[in-house]
Amino acid sequence: MDLNTVISGITNTNGKFAEQAQERLDSLTKPQGSLGRLEEFAKQLVAITENVMPDIDKKVVFTFAGDHGVVEEGVSAFPKEVTAHMVMNFIHGGAGINALAGHAGADVVIVDIGVDHDFGSLNNEGFVSSKIVSGTKNMRKGPAMTREEAGKCINVGIELANEYAKKGYKIFGTGEMGIGNTTPSSAITSVLTGKSVEDITGRGTGINDDALNNKIQVIKDSIVVNSPDTSDPIDVLSKLGGAEIAGIAGLIIGAAANKIPVVVDGFISTAGAMIAYLIQPKTKDYMFAAHMSQEVGHKSMLEKIGLRPIFDLDMRLGEGSGAALAMTVIEAGLKIYKEMATFAEAEVAEKNA
Amino acid sequence: MDLNTVISGITNTNGKFAEQAQERLDSLTKPQGSLGRLEEFAKQLVAITENVMPDIDKKVVFTFAGDHGVVEEGVSAFPKEVTAHMVMNFIHGGAGINALAGHAGADVVIVDIGVDHDFGSLNNEGFVSSKIVSGTKNMRKGPAMTREEAGKCINVGIELANEYAKKGYKIFGTGEMGIGNTTPSSAITSVLTGKSVEDITGRGTGINDDALNNKIQVIKDSIVVNSPDTSDPIDVLSKLGGAEIAGIAGLIIGAAANKIPVVVDGFISTAGAMIAYLIQPKTKDYMFAAHMSQEVGHKSMLEKIGLRPIFDLDMRLGEGSGAALAMTVIEAGLKIYKEMATFAEAEVAEKNA
Repeated sequence: MDLNTVISGITNTNGKFAEQAQERLDSLTKPQGSLGRLEEFAKQLVAITENVMPDIDKKVVFTFAGDHGVVEEGVSAFPKEVTAHMVMNFIHGGAGINALAGHAGADVVIVDIGVDHDFGSLNNEGFVSSKIVSGTKNMRKGPAMTREEAGKCINVGIELANEYAKKGYKIFGTGEMGIGNTTPSSAITSVLTGKSVEDITGRGTGINDDALNNKIQVIKDSIVVNSPDTSDPIDVLSKLGGAEIAGIAGLIIGAAANKIPVVVDGFISTAGAMIAYLIQPKTKDYMFAAHMSQEVGHKSMLEKIGLRPIFDLDMRLGEGSGAALAMTVIEAGLKIYKEMATFAEAEVAEKNA
Repeated sequence: MDLNTVISGITNTNGKFAEQAQERLDSLTKPQGSLGRLEEFAKQLVAITENVMPDIDKKVVFTFAGDHGVVEEGVSAFPKEVTAHMVMNFIHGGAGINALAGHAGADVVIVDIGVDHDFGSLNNEGFVSSKIVSGTKNMRKGPAMTREEAGKCINVGIELANEYAKKGYKIFGTGEMGIGNTTPSSAITSVLTGKSVEDITGRGTGINDDALNNKIQVIKDSIVVNSPDTSDPIDVLSKLGGAEIAGIAGLIIGAAANKIPVVVDGFISTAGAMIAYLIQPKTKDYMFAAHMSQEVGHKSMLEKIGLRPIFDLDMRLGEGSGAALAMTVIEAGLKIYKEMATFAEAEVAEKNA
C-alpha cells in the first residue's frame, strides 16, 4: 500500500475509551492515582485498542538487522561481521533479547533488512528475510541509501505490522542489531533535534576517547556531505540512516495504522520512532518509550517526541532488550486495571468526604 | 532467639562470589556492562546466596498490617476501619498487591501484627495472626509502643524469615497496610535523617493542604513529647513507630541472617529498612530498593541507607506493590546472567583490541 494512504489513515487514540478506563481505575480499592504510571499504561492500552478489557497476551519483539558502510571509518568497537554473528545467536536463542523476551512471554522475530551477509536458505520461524540493501553505503562519502531504498525499508516494517496484527499479536516491541548503528542514529538526532553532534554522540558499544572524537568528526562530515533537508524526515533517513532504522519507523507507522501498542526500545529504535513521529505525529499515541538509554543522545529524541521512558537501568544493549522488559511493566499496569476489586465489590470504606 | 545473637551472626555478602558473577557477565554475548543494572542485580543475588547459579523461583511478599492511635488526630484521608477492610480484601485477592504479586509469581502473606480488629478464627494459608498490639497508642500523647512491644514485633519478622527460608522461599518482599502509617514513617524519617518535618512529610493517601499542615504539627508534637534517642533506633521505633514498621525491620534482619535477598517496597517499608540498617548496617547488602515513592520523604531514607531504587513510576500505594513489581525486574537480571550464551559458545567475534 502507498505510504501516504497508510499515514493518512492513522487517527489519534480515542479519548472516550481513556475516560472509561479512568472511571474504572478510580473505582478500584486504592487511593486514586496511587499506582501512578501503571494506571496510565492501562489507560493508554484501552484508548489504543478501543477495548475496555484489552489483552496483550500475544507479544512480539521485532529485531531489525542491518549493516552500515560507515563502519569502514572506524566508528565502532566491534568488527562488522558481528552483525551476522549476532543474527545467528538470536536464532539460536543465546542473546540478551532472547532471555528478556522469554521473561516477558514475547516472541522474537529477527528481520534481515540490510545485513551485508548472505544467510542462504536459512529457514527459521523466528527469521524473516526482507533484505533491501546489503549494508548501507558509507554516509561520509554520500547518501547511505537512496530515497527508494528507504521507502522500501519503511514498507517492510508496515507489512510486518499488518501481518502480525492478522496473526493476533496484541503488542509489538522494536529492536535492532547493526554494528555501527549508533553513528547514523546520532547523525539523525543532531539533524532533527538541532543539538550539536558533540552533545548527542556517545560511545556505542564502548569506544575510547580517540575513537569517539573520530566518530564525531565522521558524523559532522556526513551531515556536510549530504546536506539533508531537515523538513523532510525521509530525506534525513535515507541519507544518514540505516535499513533497520527505516524498518523500525515503518513498524511503528504500521502499528498505529492497526491500532496496536508499540514499545520503543533505546537509542537506535527511538531514531526510528522520531522519523515515524515526524512523518505522522499521531503515531505518538501508540508508542511506549521503554527506557532511558545510557547512550547520551537518547534524551533529546524522547523530548522531541514527548515521551517519558518507563525505566532507567543504565542499559545500552539494543536488540529490543529494553522493549521486552518494559512489556512486563506495561502488563503489570493492565493486570491491576483488570484484576483489582472495586470499593463496592470489596466492601472497603472510601475516602473521607 | 535473642536479637543481639541474630544481628551479630549477620555478615557482609561474599565478594568472591560477586567476582565470579562478574567474570561470567563479562563473557556473555553483549558489550561489557551493556545490560547496566540488570547485571548488578544478578551479581548481588550470587553474592547474597553464595551460589553461582541461584534461583529466585519461590517468591513471597509479606504485607504487615497494623493500626495507629495517631489516626485520632486526623492525619489520614481514610477512616481507620479500612486497615481491617483491606486485610480482608488482600485475603480475597482483590487488592493491588494481589494483582502485582500474581504478575511476579509471588505468594502474598498477610501478617496481622497490630490491627485494631478481632479477626476471630480467620484461617487462611495467606494469613498469619501474630498480633502484638491492637493498634499503637497515640504518639502525640506518649510512646506509640513500649520497647518490649517493639522488640516482639521485630521478632515476628525474624521468625517469619526463618520459617519461610525453611519452606524454600528464595526471595522476600516487604509490604504493609495501616491507615495513618505515613505519619509514624515521616516522624522516624525526620528523627533519623535530621531533615525537617516539613521537608519529609507528604500527603499519604491524599490529604488536602489543611490536613497536611495538621499532620506536620502532629509529627512535631510527637517528637517533642517523646524525645526519642536518635542514637538508639529501637527507641525511635517504639516511641514513633508502628507494629508493621517493626515487623518489616525484623523481616529484613531475618532475611540477612538467612542470606536471602529482600526487596524493600516504598516509604513505610523503607522506614523499617532504615531501622534494620541502623541496628545492623550489614543488612544493606541483602536489600534491593524497589522504587522511588511519590511520598516526599522517601528519597532521604534511601540516601541514608545508600540504596538506589530500581524504578520510579510515581507509585504510592504500599502493600508491597512496588516490591512485587521489582521482583520481575530482578528476575530479568538473573535470566540474562543464567541464559545468555558466551562469546565462545555462540562463536561471535569479540571487541577490537
